Amino acid sequence: MSILIKNASYLIRKNNRIENRKDILIEGAHISKIAGSIEAPANTAIIDAKGKLVAPGFINSHTHLYQNLLKGMDDRVSLFDWVDKITFPLCSNITTKINRKDSKKIAHLWSLLAGIEAIKSGTTCVLDMDLKHVDVIQGWNDLGLRGVCARTFVDKWVPNDLAEPLKKQFKNIEKLIETYHNTPQDLPLISVFIGPSAIFTCSEKLLKWVAETAEEFDTGIQIHVAETRWEVEFVKKELGLRPVEYLHKIGFLSPRTSLVHCVHLSANEISIIAGSGATVVHCPKSNMKLGSGVAPVVEMIKRNIPVALGTDGAASNDLLDMLEDMRFAAMLQKVKHEDASVIAGDDIYKMATANGAKVCNIDAGMIEEGTLADLIIIDLNKAHLVPVHDIINTLVYCVRASDVESVVINGKIVMLERSIKTVNENKILEEIAAMKSYFE
Amino acid sequence: MSILIKNASYLIRKNNRIENRKDILIEGAHISKIAGSIEAPANTAIIDAKGKLVAPGFINSHTHLYQNLLKGMDDRVSLFDWVDKITFPLCSNITTKINRKDSKKIAHLWSLLAGIEAIKSGTTCVLDMDLKHVDVIQGWNDLGLRGVCARTFVDKWVPNDLAEPLKKQFKNIEKLIETYHNTPQDLPLISVFIGPSAIFTCSEKLLKWVAETAEEFDTGIQIHVAETRWEVEFVKKELGLRPVEYLHKIGFLSPRTSLVHCVHLSANEISIIAGSGATVVHCPKSNMKLGSGVAPVVEMIKRNIPVALGTDGAASNDLLDMLEDMRFAAMLQKVKHEDASVIAGDDIYKMATANGAKVCNIDAGMIEEGTLADLIIIDLNKAHLVPVHDIINTLVYCVRASDVESVVINGKIVMLERSIKTVNENKILEEIAAMKSYFE
Repeated sequence: MSILIKNASYLIRKNNRIENRKDILIEGAHISKIAGSIEAPANTAIIDAKGKLVAPGFINSHTHLYQNLLKGMDDRVSLFDWVDKITFPLCSNITTKINRKDSKKIAHLWSLLAGIEAIKSGTTCVLDMDLKHVDVIQGWNDLGLRGVCARTFVDKWVPNDLAEPLKKQFKNIEKLIETYHNTPQDLPLISVFIGPSAIFTCSEKLLKWVAETAEEFDTGIQIHVAETRWEVEFVKKELGLRPVEYLHKIGFLSPRTSLVHCVHLSANEISIIAGSGATVVHCPKSNMKLGSGVAPVVEMIKRNIPVALGTDGAASNDLLDMLEDMRFAAMLQKVKHEDASVIAGDDIYKMATANGAKVCNIDAGMIEEGTLADLIIIDLNKAHLVPVHDIINTLVYCVRASDVESVVINGKIVMLERSIKTVNENKILEEIAAMKSYFE
Repeated sequence: MSILIKNASYLIRKNNRIENRKDILIEGAHISKIAGSIEAPANTAIIDAKGKLVAPGFINSHTHLYQNLLKGMDDRVSLFDWVDKITFPLCSNITTKINRKDSKKIAHLWSLLAGIEAIKSGTTCVLDMDLKHVDVIQGWNDLGLRGVCARTFVDKWVPNDLAEPLKKQFKNIEKLIETYHNTPQDLPLISVFIGPSAIFTCSEKLLKWVAETAEEFDTGIQIHVAETRWEVEFVKKELGLRPVEYLHKIGFLSPRTSLVHCVHLSANEISIIAGSGATVVHCPKSNMKLGSGVAPVVEMIKRNIPVALGTDGAASNDLLDMLEDMRFAAMLQKVKHEDASVIAGDDIYKMATANGAKVCNIDAGMIEEGTLADLIIIDLNKAHLVPVHDIINTLVYCVRASDVESVVINGKIVMLERSIKTVNENKILEEIAAMKSYFE
């Protein structure tokens, strides 16, 4: 079914201003036409967006959806203790202690739960780094959410029960790629990345295998890098180089590599990233909550590094709310530099949309003819949003998740007037409540 | 009319845990009884809060409501240029260029607009620093919002058209105090503070007059202090002391003094505040957005200084959303210290409730028999809120404005199921749109 959005005020990228009162026609997965007045073809759903804003959906370029089960746990632990106390126990339970059937059911449920949260806050694509992707992907397909599964790889440092034999990991990713990657007809929403978790959890042999395999199968790569001072010191001591220098040396960096966090970088590392074509994903709330530090976002943007935005997992955020993360990203750079001029709403908005599309390798992040129809409709007639002086600033600093009224993904209406159309939200909440004993 | 909230899970202060399934009876302005099951007296509105959380309303201890007209303006200006470019022009227009009738109407409208935003995000009391209080107070009374009007005083530094003759300012505050302060029967929602805007905008003579007048009329005082490095250097150069040292020297500090910002304090100044009984209001988002710096909140809490939370005005926030400011307050201290353990959800929650009540000198900020019935009802059955592992952390890190379902202030239902019951919200939005030319 096609969709015709009538009387749309929509956001155009070239000058970040509103184009008023146009009709937007969506046919198949794409925006097929934008014009003053479009006649609805047969079998077309019509949405009247008069007085509302149509904008590209947000792209959450780094998260761990399973952590939605871990919201609001102990907030006084920095990264090191946090993995031991908060995330490893659940991963360990799910991987080894819960029977296979329930474990699969839980993975499907967290995917639905986190996916609903994402959609209801205007996110149309998530990049999820995790081990359990088959059931998670099922959730995205049920929801109609675009998802990039970055399958985690580790072969050292993590507890034994979490480090599967490498052979099994290799087999797993090959099967994922074969089933889900580059299958635009059957599974258009899904693509696969390889996700070695960090330098200190992966041997050099593994990292080299990842780079080669990504090349061979034409997938992206995502890795956590330079998140904490500890990591930098550890890598320097073990490998004689700073983290990004090391990745450069072993040939890991390319435009298909997405580097998450990049909190503690030297000037040389920023130059290396800029020269490599790699993208960076900034996770401001997570870096703040875990006490990791403040990434040199301003410096990276100056070097034209495409910096995207991620919420990270809900155990260190605790929301999957790109609108709130945009505000954190803006405020954090301004206060770091004690200078409000260092970054503007427009830079931040680009991180959450167009640059996210670059990381996820999808043709989205803007409202233009020919792009993927991944878009949101926002009701601006709210007490906390008026008067509007600058639409991008209103979006970045004022709009809340609950202002996102409707969501279209891949040409399909996924949420209409705050109601998820693809799954039964209440039933999922009931099922989560019934399973709670597993993740307490 | 009385209110009976049935089957409430409510937040108790002593251990920050939920007390389940109690009934809460509100008679007059106060919570009169909390018990397992209460029979409704005659003429009682009954709210069934089964499965919901009843919590004290948030107290926004520092804001400038007029700035709701300035949301989303240029976000690249630090404090100094910001007052010149963003706030002074509107203040100047309203004070001198717009005819008296329209100027009064605009003040009433911004009070309603900002008040609706505050209520709809769970705030039950605002402390507003401003010049135009008569019409603003009218707005609070129309809405049923508790408000503390801190009448601004200035006698130097600001543009001439904003500095009224002191004699007029004195007369004005005396009239405000006489009409609105300590009038629990006629105007129970309103109280008056004296609000000298800053050390660099007020002469010593004025500041001493403020301290004496506050003592004489038993009002509170609120002043911006040590917001920027510039201010500290300026005060040191002009007056030979750091800001808080200077206020101490001239006898300005007492338990009735509330110090806003306190970003740049020396160890000696923290000791002075701790010894004086003064309270501090932290405005994390505003300090970040204007590039002012990071307040030593952890250090102040260690010295038992009551630190409350304020959004500051919407021109530097751009919301009046205490839930979001709680998250900013938590994350900012954790990243400043690069240590997640330095502050916990509970510390932050206290800033937004009980410590705010201390600043505003009201008996609120907790759910107990005898306290003011200023409370909110939150629907926790949402995808972004479950599962709940720790109710305070869920409140601080996950709950959004839109989860606040109903609001009771001074024993009156002000919002029920997201609908403001006291004024016509849509009509106010229309009137704001019609007046827009005045504040563009």
